[in-house]
Amino acid sequence: MTQPKSENIVWHETTVSKTERENISGHRGCTVWLTGLSGSGKSTLANLLEKALWERGARAYVLDGDNVRHGLNKDLGFSPEDREENIRRIGEVAALFTEAGIINVTAFISPYKGDRDKVREIMADGDFVEVYVKCDLDECEKRDPKGLYKKARAGEIPEFTGISAPYEEPDKAELIIDTTSQSEEDSLQALLSYLEEKGYLAA
Amino acid sequence: MTQPKSENIVWHETTVSKTERENISGHRGCTVWLTGLSGSGKSTLANLLEKALWERGARAYVLDGDNVRHGLNKDLGFSPEDREENIRRIGEVAALFTEAGIINVTAFISPYKGDRDKVREIMADGDFVEVYVKCDLDECEKRDPKGLYKKARAGEIPEFTGISAPYEEPDKAELIIDTTSQSEEDSLQALLSYLEEKGYLAA
Repeated sequence: MTQPKSENIVWHETTVSKTERENISGHRGCTVWLTGLSGSGKSTLANLLEKALWERGARAYVLDGDNVRHGLNKDLGFSPEDREENIRRIGEVAALFTEAGIINVTAFISPYKGDRDKVREIMADGDFVEVYVKCDLDECEKRDPKGLYKKARAGEIPEFTGISAPYEEPDKAELIIDTTSQSEEDSLQALLSYLEEKGYLAA
Repeated sequence: MTQPKSENIVWHETTVSKTERENISGHRGCTVWLTGLSGSGKSTLANLLEKALWERGARAYVLDGDNVRHGLNKDLGFSPEDREENIRRIGEVAALFTEAGIINVTAFISPYKGDRDKVREIMADGDFVEVYVKCDLDECEKRDPKGLYKKARAGEIPEFTGISAPYEEPDKAELIIDTTSQSEEDSLQALLSYLEEKGYLAA
């Protein structure tokens, strides 16, 4: 059993506050919201970050299409309303994980500024870390890890972000990581450095 | 920074498994699903359990009406369909917390057996711990901490569980805690003992 840092924790109420959770865990609860084109490397980076955080003893969890689209949001399709509701629910779940003192990492294209801003608004100041995983469309299309660009170019996927639907770049991202040519390891280090510098993580 | 138990963790993949999270945290991820009448003591017990778990160095988080109805489920009302969707989403979020290695404690009346069983079904065997917080209706109505029974008797709340809507008792609850006369402290101890005996928590 991992022991709390102090054996003399004073509980002032019957509930445990976010600050108390953070004091025990030694890191802040927050949401690292990765946004960017399909193929930009969001999921890879999210998983590398989660792994690096657990290796440091921090509690982290990745929310992505794999665990959200087949569960919580399985009733949602890809209409504009459903896409908005998809991001809204993910944002609310991210807020719960954040409140629980976890470093929540989300990996969704989330192409609309308005949807991302609404998530920022439901969180306390500083709890929402918007990270633009920037990658040239050409490079994303060249990687095409899931073959989606090919299908989109063939007209088999309507409203595909970057091809037939817009991606609205963040204008107030806390961090921009350009993965067009940067290695995964360097991208991970940039993220970890940011979290340390801003005090989310002990350096 | 709390350190992992072992400095020699071997990561086999780029993702962190539930088992790896559990090994580092020293306890299992699971959902303790409290069900029972309004006034039976679910929220109090949930908060006491969360506090006791953090005091032992375990990571826990309470999902209840306060943090769900105003956020994730704020689009839902009280129609039969909306009540079902309310519990479905809570179950999916509980499954995410469980997967994240957290001891998730939920405090919802969740009166329908079918809804609770659906939550059990989406979780791995043993991850769902159904706890019937049993309390005589008379006693709940006497406590009436939120004045809801009074309103329900006055006809101001339609379909109020126990008064004008059914409560379906669990028939396969992992644990029954009768709070009719048992103290909060004894109820908490019964919960902690169960979690220890079944290996969710180190004894």
